[in-house]
Amino acid sequence: MSRTFVIAQGGGPTAVINQTLAGAVIAARRRHGDVRVLGAKHGIRGIAADDFIDLTAFSDGDLMHIANTPNSALGSTRDKPDDAYCGRILEGLRKAKADAFVYIGGNDTAGTLQILDRAAGGPMTFVHAPKTIDNDLAENDHTPGFISAALFVVRAFLSVDLDFRALPGIYVGIVMGRHAGFLTASAAAWRRQAADGPHLVYVPEEPFSVERLVADIHATLDRFGRCVVAMSEGVTVAGGAPLAGHLIPAHRREHDAHGNIQLSGGDLGLALQSRLKEEFPKVRARVDTFGYLPRGFNFRRGAYTIDYESWINPRGRLRRNAPAVVAVAITT
Amino acid sequence: MSRTFVIAQGGGPTAVINQTLAGAVIAARRRHGDVRVLGAKHGIRGIAADDFIDLTAFSDGDLMHIANTPNSALGSTRDKPDDAYCGRILEGLRKAKADAFVYIGGNDTAGTLQILDRAAGGPMTFVHAPKTIDNDLAENDHTPGFISAALFVVRAFLSVDLDFRALPGIYVGIVMGRHAGFLTASAAAWRRQAADGPHLVYVPEEPFSVERLVADIHATLDRFGRCVVAMSEGVTVAGGAPLAGHLIPAHRREHDAHGNIQLSGGDLGLALQSRLKEEFPKVRARVDTFGYLPRGFNFRRGAYTIDYESWINPRGRLRRNAPAVVAVAITT
Repeated sequence: MSRTFVIAQGGGPTAVINQTLAGAVIAARRRHGDVRVLGAKHGIRGIAADDFIDLTAFSDGDLMHIANTPNSALGSTRDKPDDAYCGRILEGLRKAKADAFVYIGGNDTAGTLQILDRAAGGPMTFVHAPKTIDNDLAENDHTPGFISAALFVVRAFLSVDLDFRALPGIYVGIVMGRHAGFLTASAAAWRRQAADGPHLVYVPEEPFSVERLVADIHATLDRFGRCVVAMSEGVTVAGGAPLAGHLIPAHRREHDAHGNIQLSGGDLGLALQSRLKEEFPKVRARVDTFGYLPRGFNFRRGAYTIDYESWINPRGRLRRNAPAVVAVAITT
Repeated sequence: MSRTFVIAQGGGPTAVINQTLAGAVIAARRRHGDVRVLGAKHGIRGIAADDFIDLTAFSDGDLMHIANTPNSALGSTRDKPDDAYCGRILEGLRKAKADAFVYIGGNDTAGTLQILDRAAGGPMTFVHAPKTIDNDLAENDHTPGFISAALFVVRAFLSVDLDFRALPGIYVGIVMGRHAGFLTASAAAWRRQAADGPHLVYVPEEPFSVERLVADIHATLDRFGRCVVAMSEGVTVAGGAPLAGHLIPAHRREHDAHGNIQLSGGDLGLALQSRLKEEFPKVRARVDTFGYLPRGFNFRRGAYTIDYESWINPRGRLRRNAPAVVAVAITT
């Protein structure tokens, strides 16, 4: 009997999320010659709207082109389904005769799958293919998306540290990450000596204060004549409130659908820069907010891939150490 | 008779400025076995302070390591010498018994050399080795520094365009460049179809207005459902005033020693983002200010080089098409 798998991508894109997509299709075809794989456009939104791309007939070569392209090729969504929406998604999956739904994404995507699984209450299989730039998924060392984003961050800080050796001053780079500091901490991955930046790293897991930052910068300037700081956009002041909420005037704060303060907009960086200008009037101080740059940055030249995140070898075959989830996706 | 060359780096670093440094030393040694090459630390500041590194004894291998490292290895400066400072620099060059001074940098560096040449009025040779990320040096198609910075910008916009295909909205990336828009324009280098971003590109050479931007974004959203904008930090409103001065409140504006408004601080981006939020309340709108990231970003892995900017082949030999300035530097 022929099988049908639906696959989709949810949440923020990464540089390697299309490798999971291509890997799943290629592996599914290898194991089930007559498999049909339908890609839903913009995640669950496409399932509810009956908006699919049939990936079955794509050649391995075309899939490898997609795999080597950053960001979500099928389109993504941040929709979180309520009961009625759930009903429409399950109806879409049944109409497509899906045996399984593979959803590539992070925490929110996994939560959506759980909601769907409960609502389906039947034989359909829901598979989460993990993706993250935050490295905050439980029961993993890291999952695809983190390394490529970290690679951007560590290269950026290496470069900026050398820049600020040449023309000294204070540099703060603000890195994505609301609750998890792995990506910010990766800024320090290529430090070799005490003098190498980033000299200061602030993550959301530790309480932060501007007073401490100012004191730390003073001490670093005294020691090395420059100061390079890696700061997570999600650093929190005592009591757990985000620094952004603390520093940015109320009328300028933006909130998402869940009531969280939007952190990626540059406001935090600007508020910090004003403060540093007051505290260090004679020192060149610059704050860059990396924003969206780390998450899908395209390092590739032609067929070049970030090989330790590739689950597929250059001939389009699954690597021996490919994560089990790809196999799970096609054996349910 | 043995010769002595002094070499230094001025102005903002780039990803490839050390290739010029290494190329000059290697070529000088090849042509004059007994040459002495002194690197001045932090440009003319090091000459005035008698602060040199003797590069003569560095092995070709060590020089190639330096060549493959982004940002100014000798340190840089933005000092512009007055008469007294000129006197100290010329005294420093005479003490070092310099036959020639090679200064690697952009417009300001060339201006400094002109000042020194006039003040010296003697047999010493002053050579400008061009460097730029702005591509604004006359009588060149491009000079080293532009391509590597442009490579960052075009990759960033390719990535962000794909990101905003996946999760639609408005994205504005603000790129360095006070008077020259080449770097911003390079954002469009990999566009292949009308739907590809950046959909809108604004450079300082053309008058800009926020009203026009808003109208252009409306039209682009109607057509493609998303809008990716590349904007130079130096765009000017009618009459030639920088947009930054126009949008940013007076008490927040920062000026450099020449009275120019500082453009790289993120204020422009934030002011724009507030404005976009008002104009497009229902659309996700994000403004990233690239800041320092493009200019010295380290794309290299191990010995990998941006080969079309490398003047030296992997064996440390000068390429046949190496710019004449390297030869000039060592034959005066």
